[in-house]
Amino acid sequence: MPKKNLITLKKIAQDLGFSISTVSRALNDHPDISIKTKEKIKAFASKFNYVPNLFARGFRTHKTNIIGVIVPNISHYFTSTLLKGVLEEAEIHGYKVIISESVNNITKQTEMLQTMNQFGVDGILLSLARETKNVDTILNILEQVPLVLVDKVSTKVPCTQVVIDDEDAAFRAVEHLINTGKKRIAIIKETESSFTSEKRYLGYLRALRTYNLEIDDTIILSSEDISIHQAKRLANILISLQHKPDAVFAITDGAAIGVIKALKKNKINIPEEIAVVGFSNSLNSIIIEPKLTTIDQPGNKIGSVAMKYLINEINNENNISNKTVVIKTNLIVRDSSFKINK
Amino acid sequence: MPKKNLITLKKIAQDLGFSISTVSRALNDHPDISIKTKEKIKAFASKFNYVPNLFARGFRTHKTNIIGVIVPNISHYFTSTLLKGVLEEAEIHGYKVIISESVNNITKQTEMLQTMNQFGVDGILLSLARETKNVDTILNILEQVPLVLVDKVSTKVPCTQVVIDDEDAAFRAVEHLINTGKKRIAIIKETESSFTSEKRYLGYLRALRTYNLEIDDTIILSSEDISIHQAKRLANILISLQHKPDAVFAITDGAAIGVIKALKKNKINIPEEIAVVGFSNSLNSIIIEPKLTTIDQPGNKIGSVAMKYLINEINNENNISNKTVVIKTNLIVRDSSFKINK
Repeated sequence: MPKKNLITLKKIAQDLGFSISTVSRALNDHPDISIKTKEKIKAFASKFNYVPNLFARGFRTHKTNIIGVIVPNISHYFTSTLLKGVLEEAEIHGYKVIISESVNNITKQTEMLQTMNQFGVDGILLSLARETKNVDTILNILEQVPLVLVDKVSTKVPCTQVVIDDEDAAFRAVEHLINTGKKRIAIIKETESSFTSEKRYLGYLRALRTYNLEIDDTIILSSEDISIHQAKRLANILISLQHKPDAVFAITDGAAIGVIKALKKNKINIPEEIAVVGFSNSLNSIIIEPKLTTIDQPGNKIGSVAMKYLINEINNENNISNKTVVIKTNLIVRDSSFKINK
Repeated sequence: MPKKNLITLKKIAQDLGFSISTVSRALNDHPDISIKTKEKIKAFASKFNYVPNLFARGFRTHKTNIIGVIVPNISHYFTSTLLKGVLEEAEIHGYKVIISESVNNITKQTEMLQTMNQFGVDGILLSLARETKNVDTILNILEQVPLVLVDKVSTKVPCTQVVIDDEDAAFRAVEHLINTGKKRIAIIKETESSFTSEKRYLGYLRALRTYNLEIDDTIILSSEDISIHQAKRLANILISLQHKPDAVFAITDGAAIGVIKALKKNKINIPEEIAVVGFSNSLNSIIIEPKLTTIDQPGNKIGSVAMKYLINEINNENNISNKTVVIKTNLIVRDSSFKINK
């Protein structure tokens, strides 16, 4: 029989009037939490013999060899490459995988976390639904089963997180355009602050500032959904400007393809008049003509690295990590931008 | 708060040396379990104050509200559209979905079927792994839980099957080429007898025979994997023939795109010199230039119809069906073939 543990994160949070997130981070020495709060929470936890993870995780005396994966959108191209990496890594280590989709719906995400936990999966790999602000359920699950966040992550959850550096990747994409002589670079991004869109936008802004280029709101365009169709519409706005951009950084390949289609329809030469750079290196980026310069976002690798960390935590329950692993991206220069410095 | 019951089905199974399934069935007075075994298990469960948790209840009364889905390849474009339909239909009826991939591996498929059954899913939607010849496990599962086959199916399994008519769709694709004046139509297909490739090949042959066109082995080309790259290679063989084809029917959009790329590289006019028709209406088919004429294979609809049948069987357990539901496909004529009769 596993050791009984009468105090949980939730109980500590309730009794002291903190959120579960604060209690969890305090016990994990998270830098965002004040020393005073940490001391108060630690003292309380210690008084009631709180032992993190031990109770619930020890309860799992028998392994199911199944890992649960929850992603926002299973039919997204990047997700499918990520899942490929996840499944390959699981195969190597003899794990089975069950996958579920949150459809970016937080209630659904919570339900699936609880369902998978009830099923007794050995670990959970989670890519957060958009706008997951309240992470209490996740912290609660984290107490009971190893959990790793991947791609869409949150600093509020003290666990291993595997991501790419979107801001840096976007910086390099825009820097590449600047290095080829472009001076008036537009961006096509998402309206809502998605996990990735805002970071890529920050990278865009940093590149312009670093190279002393003007930041002009008239060529910073957003759409709620950045489909090919919407990107075409936004590109048509850019084309109709008196002072047109000489390059467009689109924060997804889909958007970049919409831009290329609009430019071609208007007989604008790519990359001479307007260069285009996308983001993610999807299959489409080599089907479109001219072939798209883009950031290779190695979904396979992200998925397999996240699984490696998760499996390691499953096998070493006392070795719970709280680190962020950043997977390198690469700029792939193709025909939609110049290859050499001008 | 501590959990109420410290003993689980898993723990009972482990301690007594039975499978979880046996323990669950014993506690539920299942007729397959001997009275002696039942008594032993019940006594043990009672001693440790076993209270059935959600998982155990679901196992007995089919109330987990979870449907298991097993597909050969989760990152395939068509599969992702099928899953979209599955998930949308599940949402409407209040079901959660867990998805797993067989990677076209029969052992893995068997494992996942058993795992999902053990988990107590309410029903299983299965798209068969390539070359699933022995269907014993599937028949066994079918006895225990509602199961519907979708897309990759087998007549050996007496259950509801939801498919498209690949043979008929291929016939219409080739007939369209013939109606536009093409007389020497090549096919690019898979080497191995996949569920779909052979049926599409039969449709191709039937169209040629129906219109009294010669069947010429030199323009019937196969590859084990019909990637864009392989299709390019095969298209180059066709181009190098003295007696070139005037059209190519590629059994996937990916293959058709490879063909178009090879033809363009060799400055062969599409569709005047060689027309191209694909199969599946993937996103790529409108990104490639010329846009691809193709068969629209409505994955969303296939997935949602299959789920409707499955949910109906879950709710009416005595109403097990054995019928094959055929979902209609449409030929979408775009720029890679002529629009009107010549």
